[in-house]
Amino acid sequence: MALEEAFTEFTRRDWESEPVDGTVQLAIVGTGGFARNRALPAIADGRYCSVTTLVTGSPDSAHTLAEEFDVEHVISYDAFRRGSHANSYDAAYIATPNGTHGEFAIAAAEHGAHVLCEKPLETTVERTREILEACADAGVTLMTAYRLQTEPAVRRTRELIREGTIGEVVQIQGGFSHPLLEYTSPDTWRLDPDLAGGGALVDLGVYPLNTIRFLLDCDPTGVYATTYSSGGPFAAVDEHVAFQLEFPTEVTASCTASFDAHAHSRLEIIGTDGIILIASPFGGVVPQEMVVESGDMRMEYTGPPVDEVCEEFDYFGYCVLTGTEPEPDGRDGLIDLYAIEAAYESAQTGRRVELALE
Amino acid sequence: MALEEAFTEFTRRDWESEPVDGTVQLAIVGTGGFARNRALPAIADGRYCSVTTLVTGSPDSAHTLAEEFDVEHVISYDAFRRGSHANSYDAAYIATPNGTHGEFAIAAAEHGAHVLCEKPLETTVERTREILEACADAGVTLMTAYRLQTEPAVRRTRELIREGTIGEVVQIQGGFSHPLLEYTSPDTWRLDPDLAGGGALVDLGVYPLNTIRFLLDCDPTGVYATTYSSGGPFAAVDEHVAFQLEFPTEVTASCTASFDAHAHSRLEIIGTDGIILIASPFGGVVPQEMVVESGDMRMEYTGPPVDEVCEEFDYFGYCVLTGTEPEPDGRDGLIDLYAIEAAYESAQTGRRVELALE
Repeated sequence: MALEEAFTEFTRRDWESEPVDGTVQLAIVGTGGFARNRALPAIADGRYCSVTTLVTGSPDSAHTLAEEFDVEHVISYDAFRRGSHANSYDAAYIATPNGTHGEFAIAAAEHGAHVLCEKPLETTVERTREILEACADAGVTLMTAYRLQTEPAVRRTRELIREGTIGEVVQIQGGFSHPLLEYTSPDTWRLDPDLAGGGALVDLGVYPLNTIRFLLDCDPTGVYATTYSSGGPFAAVDEHVAFQLEFPTEVTASCTASFDAHAHSRLEIIGTDGIILIASPFGGVVPQEMVVESGDMRMEYTGPPVDEVCEEFDYFGYCVLTGTEPEPDGRDGLIDLYAIEAAYESAQTGRRVELALE
Repeated sequence: MALEEAFTEFTRRDWESEPVDGTVQLAIVGTGGFARNRALPAIADGRYCSVTTLVTGSPDSAHTLAEEFDVEHVISYDAFRRGSHANSYDAAYIATPNGTHGEFAIAAAEHGAHVLCEKPLETTVERTREILEACADAGVTLMTAYRLQTEPAVRRTRELIREGTIGEVVQIQGGFSHPLLEYTSPDTWRLDPDLAGGGALVDLGVYPLNTIRFLLDCDPTGVYATTYSSGGPFAAVDEHVAFQLEFPTEVTASCTASFDAHAHSRLEIIGTDGIILIASPFGGVVPQEMVVESGDMRMEYTGPPVDEVCEEFDYFGYCVLTGTEPEPDGRDGLIDLYAIEAAYESAQTGRRVELALE
């Protein structure tokens, strides 16, 4: 594939062979910042989902939100668990703290609803397995909300890699830092290991982890990690993490994540015949800036703005409407939990931990 | 320090408090590509060194070189070992294969000559120690030829870090890949473990390793590494390496090096309040392109071209003439050998190896 060709129709939805009719009615479970500021507007802008139900612990503010986005029902978490208004939604988007994903995802599945669950799927492999089993038993679609997988820069990068534009991939470097306490109070659930399942690795490191697995279409066989915490609000979790993944193709990925560093992200793939750099891939609003070197050719590209959250919900809706298994399925989310648990074990033992993926 | 101030007189030689009189007469030991194409022209352009003697295994071609650069003596390695023309040089620049550095550096010291020795100093910690001891016994200056340490982008970066421009350093990512066989035949000494001491880690990885130690002014306490080789010409050494360094300041450095990937290098320092990126720092001709983010400020800077090899020889000459101990001294080179040996041990055992630096 010539480089020009790769960047023609940069934002094309290669997953959407043709538009389909219909809309998936959603319950939004958890009305925190991301649900309010990113998910609801993105769904409104999108094609295949609409929101009928808000599930919340803050009914007052959720009613305001419901009015703004024309949402019919506002119910409590308890009501959701009981199946209240379950006829009003086809699927549930789980956007609560990680450690509560399981109970809501399983409740949704038991009410016959498809599940789009935020990443990481849960806080442990064991709890994640329960989600997968519940969704399988109920025969509903389970998608892990890895929005990067529907992000044009990432999808075009995967195509370029597959086409051999940079030869064989040799090494990858990825990093994501986000100064959490500049945006959130220290009592955030993200710093509570029971609710979050960990710190920077779980919340931020999972982005390069999953994106690299997606790009390589391959799962790691081993991981080594170093974690640090300066105490204080970060005492119970990893404030900083550096981890190195090994893939069966002999590719290594060197990754970092931090809750307490300058806001920054990058992903660079080094191949035998070129490189691809995606600038700021993980920060939530991707500038679609890429650098590609292939042999003697170098290209800097800036694509048009795309709301990756809109892409993500439309992808989920399309999969549900067409009966397609999403690429970021339950197994995809489960494997990241394996890798996260192995990384924490490595940080404790100082040893490479093999990833015995089942 | 304001950012503007840091970039004023970008190429300033902060190590040269004032110019001094005199010239250090050099013997160039080894007349391979780097000596011919980079060192000799750089010395000719510089201020504090001149070449009086070429020491070579190829007298014919060296005579042509000697004419071109107006060098008085051309002698064999044996003659150098015996001290032939030792009165004609004050110092020796050792640019032979790594595994022969020791014999020539020690011979030079025994003839009373100061030593500028290419990196890595030798192939093992033990042999490196012998160089340090010989130079100490002879009372001569020993400098390891870490040219990056005299490179303006790196020196300005160290100043910015010291001034707190990016807050506290949290994480570093560095990489250097160079498709060796596009430039060199497969029988190169760089792929012979006895002569080279290793592969990509020794030849390329040492650049981010040493530069990061220089920038942090700190030695690593532990290292983890993964090495791969596809066999063939790379069978005896590491073709690719990924290694993760841990520093006592809880900084991690995630590094990669490859003999068989697209030519590329980069170094990125992530702090609590900013980042510094140096583009292509390790490729031999540094474009002096930097990106600095400090708080809300972002600056892209391209400095004027500087020949880092000229800087390096002038720094060495200045140190010898003023009796100053060079920063990249023997101990500096020795510590990288410790780190390299530890990294290879880690690659074999799959464990973090502590760096017990003496």
